[in-house]
Amino acid sequence: MALARMLERYLPILVWLPHYRRELFSHDLLAGLIVTVMVIPQSLAYALLAGLPAVVGLYASILPLFAYTIFGSSRTLAVGPVAIIALMTAAALAGVAAPGSSAYIEAALVLTLLSGLMLTIMGLLRLGFFANFLSHPVISGFLSASGLLIAASQAAHLLGITASGYTLVALLSDLIAHLGDLHWPTLAVGAATLAFLVVMRRHAKTALIRLGFPERLADLLGKTGPVFAVAITTLICWRFDLATSGVAVVGDVAGGLPPLTLPGFEPALWKELLIPALLISVVGFVESVSMGQMLAAKRRERISPDQELIGLGTSNLAAAFSGGMPVTGGLSRTVINFDAGARTPAAGIVAALGIAVATLFFTPLLHYLPVATLAAVITVSILTLVDVQAMRRTWRYSRSDFAAMLATLGLTLIEGVEAGILAGVGLSIGLFLYRTSRPHSALVGRVPGTEHFRNMARHHVESSQRVALLRIDESLYFANARYLEDTVYGLIAEHPGLDHVVLICSAVNLIDASALESLEAINARLADAEVTLHLAEVKGPVMDRLKHTDFIEALTGRVFFSTYSAWRELNPTSAGTSQAVSER
Amino acid sequence: MALARMLERYLPILVWLPHYRRELFSHDLLAGLIVTVMVIPQSLAYALLAGLPAVVGLYASILPLFAYTIFGSSRTLAVGPVAIIALMTAAALAGVAAPGSSAYIEAALVLTLLSGLMLTIMGLLRLGFFANFLSHPVISGFLSASGLLIAASQAAHLLGITASGYTLVALLSDLIAHLGDLHWPTLAVGAATLAFLVVMRRHAKTALIRLGFPERLADLLGKTGPVFAVAITTLICWRFDLATSGVAVVGDVAGGLPPLTLPGFEPALWKELLIPALLISVVGFVESVSMGQMLAAKRRERISPDQELIGLGTSNLAAAFSGGMPVTGGLSRTVINFDAGARTPAAGIVAALGIAVATLFFTPLLHYLPVATLAAVITVSILTLVDVQAMRRTWRYSRSDFAAMLATLGLTLIEGVEAGILAGVGLSIGLFLYRTSRPHSALVGRVPGTEHFRNMARHHVESSQRVALLRIDESLYFANARYLEDTVYGLIAEHPGLDHVVLICSAVNLIDASALESLEAINARLADAEVTLHLAEVKGPVMDRLKHTDFIEALTGRVFFSTYSAWRELNPTSAGTSQAVSER
Repeated sequence: MALARMLERYLPILVWLPHYRRELFSHDLLAGLIVTVMVIPQSLAYALLAGLPAVVGLYASILPLFAYTIFGSSRTLAVGPVAIIALMTAAALAGVAAPGSSAYIEAALVLTLLSGLMLTIMGLLRLGFFANFLSHPVISGFLSASGLLIAASQAAHLLGITASGYTLVALLSDLIAHLGDLHWPTLAVGAATLAFLVVMRRHAKTALIRLGFPERLADLLGKTGPVFAVAITTLICWRFDLATSGVAVVGDVAGGLPPLTLPGFEPALWKELLIPALLISVVGFVESVSMGQMLAAKRRERISPDQELIGLGTSNLAAAFSGGMPVTGGLSRTVINFDAGARTPAAGIVAALGIAVATLFFTPLLHYLPVATLAAVITVSILTLVDVQAMRRTWRYSRSDFAAMLATLGLTLIEGVEAGILAGVGLSIGLFLYRTSRPHSALVGRVPGTEHFRNMARHHVESSQRVALLRIDESLYFANARYLEDTVYGLIAEHPGLDHVVLICSAVNLIDASALESLEAINARLADAEVTLHLAEVKGPVMDRLKHTDFIEALTGRVFFSTYSAWRELNPTSAGTSQAVSER
Repeated sequence: MALARMLERYLPILVWLPHYRRELFSHDLLAGLIVTVMVIPQSLAYALLAGLPAVVGLYASILPLFAYTIFGSSRTLAVGPVAIIALMTAAALAGVAAPGSSAYIEAALVLTLLSGLMLTIMGLLRLGFFANFLSHPVISGFLSASGLLIAASQAAHLLGITASGYTLVALLSDLIAHLGDLHWPTLAVGAATLAFLVVMRRHAKTALIRLGFPERLADLLGKTGPVFAVAITTLICWRFDLATSGVAVVGDVAGGLPPLTLPGFEPALWKELLIPALLISVVGFVESVSMGQMLAAKRRERISPDQELIGLGTSNLAAAFSGGMPVTGGLSRTVINFDAGARTPAAGIVAALGIAVATLFFTPLLHYLPVATLAAVITVSILTLVDVQAMRRTWRYSRSDFAAMLATLGLTLIEGVEAGILAGVGLSIGLFLYRTSRPHSALVGRVPGTEHFRNMARHHVESSQRVALLRIDESLYFANARYLEDTVYGLIAEHPGLDHVVLICSAVNLIDASALESLEAINARLADAEVTLHLAEVKGPVMDRLKHTDFIEALTGRVFFSTYSAWRELNPTSAGTSQAVSER
């Protein structure tokens, strides 16, 4: 039994496959076929974006889908090359080899292998929670900046000029420098495709509905823009032989099934690609898992982040051994799969088989596909990443979250994707630590006639010259331990008549070893000043730990169950007497 | 007025100097003279430890004291070379130049200058709180490991052999390899000094008190061990001409006042020393400020961390321009100063003048001072850093804090001081984030007949099948936002009969932008499942921010003032009716 459960955990396919019915298959077959047609242009485009031959994008859309079907926990996620990861791949490999060279392709396989190993190991170690350290504003800033970077890199292809670089400055200055080389026929193809795609995206669905198509079909047909664009521009390019007049085309694509590839082991290269592979893994995982969660929530299913790591890890391993490139759950291909009605990962198998057939037989047709068409496809889909709405909302809600977002955005544009994402993570963590390092605390007093206590600065409450009730609104840990000392010392310096200080710990969820030392210091110093220190409302788990410490032995005062009982006991004007203090 | 206050803030000397009385001066004069005598051996020893000529230690004990007197906020702190910083200096310069070479001395000045600039700038930017990110266990583990490293490096001098390296493995293997070169006369001097110092440290005070000396004087005399050790071994070495029989001596020390030095600007060198300078600054500041706070607390004074940064920064700048080395507040010299009765920083001026006179006239006397004597002085004072007590206490209180301590200790020993301190900081922060990323939460129920609510798992309480009261014991931020979603989704999956979920936010001190998005997602998903989401006991500052968000607009339920009112309104068996829910 335990073995079966473990197998089910690590091989989610065992959960759905035994219950698979023919009825489900008709859904999955349709979805898989639709995905096949839709993702071919994308896959080619992202391989080019990564600086790799177009066919690599197809290879990376076959075996990884099988791996994800077996190991992935989301039922509708479709893996394959995605724009951000392609961009990061290009940036990572820039210093290693010349784009397009065989050393470059080899390095891409190593990068894919490393990423696959990292993801799989992280999954086995159950480190899925790591993804949480990328805050939403940082992800949003990073995606927006990546979208702009990718759009800038594609602008060159649309204009028929060459521009390279992985920062906005490098790309734009290169673009401007080469603006004289502008190639009008290429621009014509690019601009026409761009216009066609934008119109399809904005108006096709409503137009089709008005023509009487059912809504779901209209929605799906509205998304076929890229397929038509690819077909039409390829035909035009072939018919009018635009390639000879200088329009860049995909050219000869080596057909056939994905080759079996064995990424080489070259220690220096592995070491150099370690950090990029880690960043690619984390970014890919975060993008994929957020989307997976969103879609699972729509169908009342759940996905397991740890299992997703294994699913994505094995997908990348599969890509590494079949001439591919780093893959992850792609937003557009997953949405297409979901909208097309995929019920189980079997839809992914169908798509994988479909793409395999296409790779085997139809690659010659891609010879005349203009690169500008693919650039237009990328540009239109990528610009949706630039989320101005999220920026505005974040600005309104929290200035510091906005600062993290802006820094990530700016650094990604100026310094590149790796610097941007690292700075974003660092800043998110730093800001959180900074916020918690200066915890809010309040002197409280009793709401007259009740057992409730409220902030003296905000409410009219009863208080005492002799008893200070200090409510601490934060867990106590190393980053704020010294601040707590300062607060208490400031308190007794300002109130010379104090006999008792009660720390109200209702919001203290943790006291770490540093904070414990600070509490010991506070206790000793208050004792010197003849002020008694008490605690109140200490939470169960916190008290369990304090119980056996020297601090609680040395505590000059008591630990009260509630603020009210502390008040009653310590305040001579109420029922209890202050004698009670010396009890313990 | 404002100007005067600002001047007083940045020049603490203006606070005490105008009120300076002759009576204070007699205290400060005595303390200053005692410090002069005591710190000369130390200063020489630490300069050697840093791989610098002994006299550099004296230079670094003159002008920096003046600077600290003007800018420092502690009244008793004594700055100068200290053991840890000397060790870190040696480690930082190891890759840059050969110890003792003029390039090495030059690089030490650059390191000092960088550290001075960093500290001063951090002080002006009021970044004193940064020191809080070094948790106590990390500091303790780091100090213990540094103590062991320094002791290992001094063992070579005590044995009269050469061993170098900045990790325990390197030092010990070097020691063992050269054990054949052991020099018996050196060992005799070293071992005798070591024994003398240990005996003085342990027994001198009690013995002197028994002989009728007053306690304070006995305490002070008990600390003169190093002074006598230096004087006696120098005399012996001179009298018996031990230097010619191979006992290493300090040799010719260039006397005279500190030279005016101008650290050179060499971009590559500056860049290489940037990180070491930062670590030296932070470690020095943390050591100094913890000590300063402890002593200030004893006298009911307060020090300002930000001003301390400026005090230490200007001290290092002074050291950089007067042939010195990185300095900070030293534990032993400060304790001597404090115990000798220093009242104001004027005692530091006296000590600075005293050391200047000694440097000017008495350096020839140091020629025959055996290096083994200085090694013994360092060893005895440094081994007090190894704090086994703190380790045991931390182990008992918190395994994760202990893990951070052990990792810092281990990495410092194995990989060196920089790796150790960086890993320690990373681990402290990581552990804190990990802890807060899986926040404690509890389903609560009503204590029968009261308005109190307690954890259902721990107490017998009233609960409802339709209303879940979920108390969240942590601030909500990016690292735990997704975990909260999982918790709530798990809750509704397990309790199909739920109509209402109330999130009790009494311990939520912060909701960041990521958590806000998660709350929006939870609200939407619960709405799909026809479950109403409510909040209760939201704190004032948190509610102020939530007020204007889309989330609060979209919230399907209400925000209750107290858990009790939520219970009363939502529970059909009590006074209110569930109708009330649709109110907002």
